[in-house]
Amino acid sequence: MKVYLDNAATTAMDDRVIEAMLPFMKNHFGNPSSVHSHGREVRNAIEKARKKVAELLNTSPSEIFFTSGGTEADNTALICGIESHGLTHAITSPLEHHAVLHTLEVCEAKGHIKLSILDVNEKGEIDFGQLEELLKAHPKSIVSLMQANNEIGNLNDLTKIGNLTQEYGAFFHSDTVQTMGHYVHDLATLPVDSLVAGGHKFHGPKGSGFLYVNKKKKIHPFIHGGAQERNMRGGTENVIGIVGIAKALEIAYEDMAGHQKHIEGLKSLFIEELKAAIPDVQFNGLSEDLEKSLYTVLNVSMPPSEANRGMLLFNLDLDGISASGGSACSSGATVGSHVLRALNHSAERDAVRFSFSRFNSKEDVFYTVQKLRELYAVEA
Amino acid sequence: MKVYLDNAATTAMDDRVIEAMLPFMKNHFGNPSSVHSHGREVRNAIEKARKKVAELLNTSPSEIFFTSGGTEADNTALICGIESHGLTHAITSPLEHHAVLHTLEVCEAKGHIKLSILDVNEKGEIDFGQLEELLKAHPKSIVSLMQANNEIGNLNDLTKIGNLTQEYGAFFHSDTVQTMGHYVHDLATLPVDSLVAGGHKFHGPKGSGFLYVNKKKKIHPFIHGGAQERNMRGGTENVIGIVGIAKALEIAYEDMAGHQKHIEGLKSLFIEELKAAIPDVQFNGLSEDLEKSLYTVLNVSMPPSEANRGMLLFNLDLDGISASGGSACSSGATVGSHVLRALNHSAERDAVRFSFSRFNSKEDVFYTVQKLRELYAVEA
Repeated sequence: MKVYLDNAATTAMDDRVIEAMLPFMKNHFGNPSSVHSHGREVRNAIEKARKKVAELLNTSPSEIFFTSGGTEADNTALICGIESHGLTHAITSPLEHHAVLHTLEVCEAKGHIKLSILDVNEKGEIDFGQLEELLKAHPKSIVSLMQANNEIGNLNDLTKIGNLTQEYGAFFHSDTVQTMGHYVHDLATLPVDSLVAGGHKFHGPKGSGFLYVNKKKKIHPFIHGGAQERNMRGGTENVIGIVGIAKALEIAYEDMAGHQKHIEGLKSLFIEELKAAIPDVQFNGLSEDLEKSLYTVLNVSMPPSEANRGMLLFNLDLDGISASGGSACSSGATVGSHVLRALNHSAERDAVRFSFSRFNSKEDVFYTVQKLRELYAVEA
Repeated sequence: MKVYLDNAATTAMDDRVIEAMLPFMKNHFGNPSSVHSHGREVRNAIEKARKKVAELLNTSPSEIFFTSGGTEADNTALICGIESHGLTHAITSPLEHHAVLHTLEVCEAKGHIKLSILDVNEKGEIDFGQLEELLKAHPKSIVSLMQANNEIGNLNDLTKIGNLTQEYGAFFHSDTVQTMGHYVHDLATLPVDSLVAGGHKFHGPKGSGFLYVNKKKKIHPFIHGGAQERNMRGGTENVIGIVGIAKALEIAYEDMAGHQKHIEGLKSLFIEELKAAIPDVQFNGLSEDLEKSLYTVLNVSMPPSEANRGMLLFNLDLDGISASGGSACSSGATVGSHVLRALNHSAERDAVRFSFSRFNSKEDVFYTVQKLRELYAVEA
């Protein structure tokens, strides 16, 4: 049996997304910048995709820019946000994805900003008092806080953060790679200046993404070249990627509540079964709390075990179960998780992230818990 | 009849490329950074693709970095080449693609470099004496000169330029977007520090590209995030794009001489037929010279005509013929061509770029010349 429980790393593409992309591989191959018929039919498809994304997020197509993925979108928002608005200070958390952390570290190393990293408690929660103090002390700040952590699933309240940053006139960017397509985003009311998506996190194609930038906080381009994306991103558009991400988002919005219910049910079942099967199992961050964590992510801290120490993912893999230790978004990631380090996770215990999608079933949960039971030699 | 003669803008995908990509849409969906089986099979495909590209270009896989396209690759080479090697001066030509020109202009505007633009004559040829003077005067230079111009097809001699830049210790980048997959590149002997490819220019997918950087001239990353591409480009890899561009390059190398012969034959026929059909037809740049221009591109300067003035591309489109005025790589490009401006092309004459691929036939040529004959009301 093969069980895929690494959906926060990437998801299987939806067949309907593939179907939507195929015509742009086989027949409609023109360059969207060409004014002739071969180009125009492709231009139409891109602008239809942009309109669809904007409509789903309740915003204007002129605020949606397609990119090669979430990471490029984060880099663009941060690097160009800082440059375009003359910002001199950045505030973030130690739990952010490297697409945010490394980018801000580079900006600091180049002398463009001073970087402040918020404290987090052992559950990974930030301190709003400290955030406000920093905003007060540094009038030209950019705040970058993700909506949901990719490893432990902790949810940040974007409305609360956004209202606070607005009060102090700061720029608020949120890495929404893990939540886009899984929660409703109403950009008409959400007080966020920029946010991002990576298509492959919600059954769309890898290599696709988009950046939303509020029209009141315009930024300049990151990749220079042609006039594509309303002068915001040079380079011939990845047409199949754009068509694919828009279709994936459309499908996600069709029955988001139903998917959430199904996946949350699996997560809840997994927690129950694990607790019953493995004495002393623990959960990292807020991931056990269904209200305060992403419904797709469960980060489990297994009891100390000589047999599995450092080998848990390998052992699960031998049993056909794909899961992740920390983030799989970093190539050949055998280095430890910076997130778990920030939470002072015990080196005695193995941590494993199980992440679910609408393609998972109860059987996946039962099989995985049974294998864990065997690995930890707990009698059923 | 539909005739596609805009292959310098983009090409139709080869069916074998699509076939190679499909398994990574339908079945092998893992994140290449994941260490489990779902991830490893995809990691293997990426590294096989990198090895194939390196082998075809006679270089090492460690020097090939996949990108979202030629434009991102150009931006990376220029922006990060300048930063990583402490360069203070750039030399380029007014005929370069905007991916190079705009990027260098931005670097100059930020105060990172002083930018020198070479003079060109009315045929678009650069002055090697002037290049050498500039190299002599500015010891920390980057030279960015394309191998073939995308609008008029002029070929630059990379070996000659490379030897000169090496003599003066400069960094030599070449935008090879129009030549990759159309000419053999032997990177073991070519004195170029970095060059680029965009998959969709040789029957591969849009949104795919790669950057070659000589291991002696290492540069730091442009997009920050995970450790992908040996720490050179953060972001989950566009797996289908990578598999696709490698397959497209492999197909291109299988019978490059045969394709060249076929396409050069069409270009030659087109020149002959045009000259016979349209009195006073002229050719921009060196594009009439088969030795000195890209065999895929012919830039035609039509005689002054009230009926077609500014309407030629539109009229051709009505006849089912897709061609381009200047470059189509710029979104909704109705602004005039900076290349033709640099050549002092007469505003009285309409310029049109016809560009060919191995999918074109003699019938395409005869049909197009016949339509031009009718548009210019020349008796057959």
